[in-house]
Amino acid sequence: MHKKPEILQRHVVAQSRLFRVESFDLRFSNGVERTYERLVPGGSGAVMLVALLDDKTVALIREYGGGIEDYTLTLPKGAIDLGESLRDACNRELQEEIGYAGREFIWLKKLSLSPSYMKSGIDVVLVRDLYPSQLEGDEPEPLELVPWSLERLHELYAQEDCTEGRAIAALALTQEFLAGRFSGTPL
Amino acid sequence: MHKKPEILQRHVVAQSRLFRVESFDLRFSNGVERTYERLVPGGSGAVMLVALLDDKTVALIREYGGGIEDYTLTLPKGAIDLGESLRDACNRELQEEIGYAGREFIWLKKLSLSPSYMKSGIDVVLVRDLYPSQLEGDEPEPLELVPWSLERLHELYAQEDCTEGRAIAALALTQEFLAGRFSGTPL
Repeated sequence: MHKKPEILQRHVVAQSRLFRVESFDLRFSNGVERTYERLVPGGSGAVMLVALLDDKTVALIREYGGGIEDYTLTLPKGAIDLGESLRDACNRELQEEIGYAGREFIWLKKLSLSPSYMKSGIDVVLVRDLYPSQLEGDEPEPLELVPWSLERLHELYAQEDCTEGRAIAALALTQEFLAGRFSGTPL
Repeated sequence: MHKKPEILQRHVVAQSRLFRVESFDLRFSNGVERTYERLVPGGSGAVMLVALLDDKTVALIREYGGGIEDYTLTLPKGAIDLGESLRDACNRELQEEIGYAGREFIWLKKLSLSPSYMKSGIDVVLVRDLYPSQLEGDEPEPLELVPWSLERLHELYAQEDCTEGRAIAALALTQEFLAGRFSGTPL
């Protein structure tokens, strides 16, 4: 493996309400220099939730995606509030987005969005032992809860409105976990 | 399913060399209005390649990710050049990044990066029947080719340097395709 490149300088080149772009100059171990740009998130991170309604059923949501300007079928997710624990963030988002709280939380992995261009990561957490509990979120309209059989994930992947890479990855990790081939960390 | 929100107005609020941020006001079908921001990519799209070195081995690369400021183990990928066909883009990126060309290309799915905040999508293409062929790319340093057994993907997912959600999703789609549970489209 290569030695990490040296960072020569960095500065913010664009900023909006939600996005900040950083430019930075790198010198690779072979002496080559390049200018990179990356998105740097504000905030305290984010969680993506694989909530099992029973042993064989996962809770999907159908929500409007402003990025793709269309409705999409994906997993519940949201930002971690300042000072909030990962477990509390998971349980709050679940109650806001699908009307359930959970009793068992298992951290599976932190996924990166685009390692080349974005610093963002999202913690994937499996939630089991759910019970109905609702919290008011900040959604512009109610999300549609779509229960989906874990045995029919291949049919989900074939749906045109299921496109989010991180959600498909989180479901693949869940399958490996449930098959005993991938370990998680209880929260 | 809800009726899509009406877009009231949109404009660019931040721009850098690589990133453009668009702000837009939406009115949802229930009358709620919200201001969204999203990243809008330039260019002609991107491809992510699941290149099979043999029936049981996929070609991974280890490359420096400017976004996460670390080396990462992921799939070959890159931008489609203006006017380039999807198949040609795949074959060029393969030759630049792993030193192989391919004879069989099967489109699996277009994955979205973050449906809520980004318009970007990436086409996932399975490539088989490879032969050695090198093209000069624009990498600052040579990429490391890491052959990985498809039977040990769960071990890959457990690696700390394998984090990219889209790559894990592409590998999961490949497994479903190879198991005959998911169909692709020959290019």
